[in-house]
Amino acid sequence: MSLNTATVRTQWGLAECIEGCRRHGIGGISPWRDKLHEMGVAAAATAIRDAGLAVSGLCRGGWFTASGSLGPEVLDDNRRAVDEAAEIGAACLVMVVGGLTDGSRDLPGAHALVEDGLARTLDYARTVGVPVAIEPLHPMYAADRACVNTLSHALDICDRLGDGIGVALDVYHVWWDPDLPRQIARAGRDRILAFHVCDWLLPTRDLLTDRGMMGDGVIDIPGIRAMVEAVGFDGLTEVEIFSALDWWTRDPDDVLATMVARGRSAC
Amino acid sequence: MSLNTATVRTQWGLAECIEGCRRHGIGGISPWRDKLHEMGVAAAATAIRDAGLAVSGLCRGGWFTASGSLGPEVLDDNRRAVDEAAEIGAACLVMVVGGLTDGSRDLPGAHALVEDGLARTLDYARTVGVPVAIEPLHPMYAADRACVNTLSHALDICDRLGDGIGVALDVYHVWWDPDLPRQIARAGRDRILAFHVCDWLLPTRDLLTDRGMMGDGVIDIPGIRAMVEAVGFDGLTEVEIFSALDWWTRDPDDVLATMVARGRSAC
Repeated sequence: MSLNTATVRTQWGLAECIEGCRRHGIGGISPWRDKLHEMGVAAAATAIRDAGLAVSGLCRGGWFTASGSLGPEVLDDNRRAVDEAAEIGAACLVMVVGGLTDGSRDLPGAHALVEDGLARTLDYARTVGVPVAIEPLHPMYAADRACVNTLSHALDICDRLGDGIGVALDVYHVWWDPDLPRQIARAGRDRILAFHVCDWLLPTRDLLTDRGMMGDGVIDIPGIRAMVEAVGFDGLTEVEIFSALDWWTRDPDDVLATMVARGRSAC
Repeated sequence: MSLNTATVRTQWGLAECIEGCRRHGIGGISPWRDKLHEMGVAAAATAIRDAGLAVSGLCRGGWFTASGSLGPEVLDDNRRAVDEAAEIGAACLVMVVGGLTDGSRDLPGAHALVEDGLARTLDYARTVGVPVAIEPLHPMYAADRACVNTLSHALDICDRLGDGIGVALDVYHVWWDPDLPRQIARAGRDRILAFHVCDWLLPTRDLLTDRGMMGDGVIDIPGIRAMVEAVGFDGLTEVEIFSALDWWTRDPDDVLATMVARGRSAC
């Protein structure tokens, strides 16, 4: 199991997350870059190593459509993200690719920009040896966060770009897809670089920050986990919960304890 | 253009909607069944005919997963919906198929139940001559409203069930899908029974009731409309806007006037 720092992002910095993982017997961590920069990349790399934690990913690169073109600031930031992923020994750099460019309704244009940005970042990431993981986000984020919204689309991009790129599969984003079993089989072990869990709550009160703890929602997490394990995935199960109304308001040690318990009972 | 009564559902009953369409030069209407029952089916049929309105659909049948099995109450209600659609001369009966059954995480089970329910309703609808239209809903409704969430899935069901069934295509639900152009081409004229419009707002403040007026959001409505027209669809463009925070609070004559203007400028 791995702790994505977003799960306790209002409560803890990265140093506290690392300590928390140690206290709760959690074997891995996946930092967001804001937390990483806050602590300092070198200090974080040392602390993670000293704690004996695996790093299941670095969140996040991408956002290729932010400015409407692949300007140097976007590409340079992605290169820096690759370097940071390498420095902390992350299993992959997770890509939230970006939605429509501001004021635009051109979805195919956004798709093209994203694929170009991924290709260019991948060129660099290959030289450093960091796998790039496209995270298909739920279709409700197509406009403002990521215009790659199905595993099928992400794998089409991987097929076109070749080696060194795969997907970060988050059950929250893909659980509804009737094509999921077929696409997980298509992905195979080589393309599945990360496996994220949380749960879909009923009702969902906010599009971004009302995700649930595993077991509190409707996603068949063990079913999806069995599919990814059937194709050979043996990485960590990473817990990433955006929850402004619930888990971000709780004692973070309770969050981690619950996460560990639910890892056994609901994943 | 056609007015779906949901667009002014807090302001007007069906009789007022019919009058409103006449005043604003809107040539069609699509009632929800609660409004239809309120007015009385026979009275509504007469008033719609007298007003010279086309009926682009009846909303809605379906909800096959409501009770966890296809009990008589579910199937009978769908037969009544078919009869009502016939009585008002609706171009189709729109199906919101239902999500997961209560307390369940079994998505394939829900899919199977839905397909069985559609097949049984279709058997009856064929005898009455009412086309059945599956409305794929946005994936964010997979758990609680409809577990058919892509045009591809809906068309797979149509292929298995044969004649007399097609889809109601609502841009709000499908605009994000990278496979949309291919699936619209696959659907062709015979399977596209209705075309609904509204817009995806940024930000979207509520999963169900924060849909936008055409032109106020990010959907390339003219682009999608061109695709459906390219395969021969020549039915009405139906405006269905769930908007608790905005359009449901306005003077309904302003809503219809805006809808007509945006039909020209943004569709």
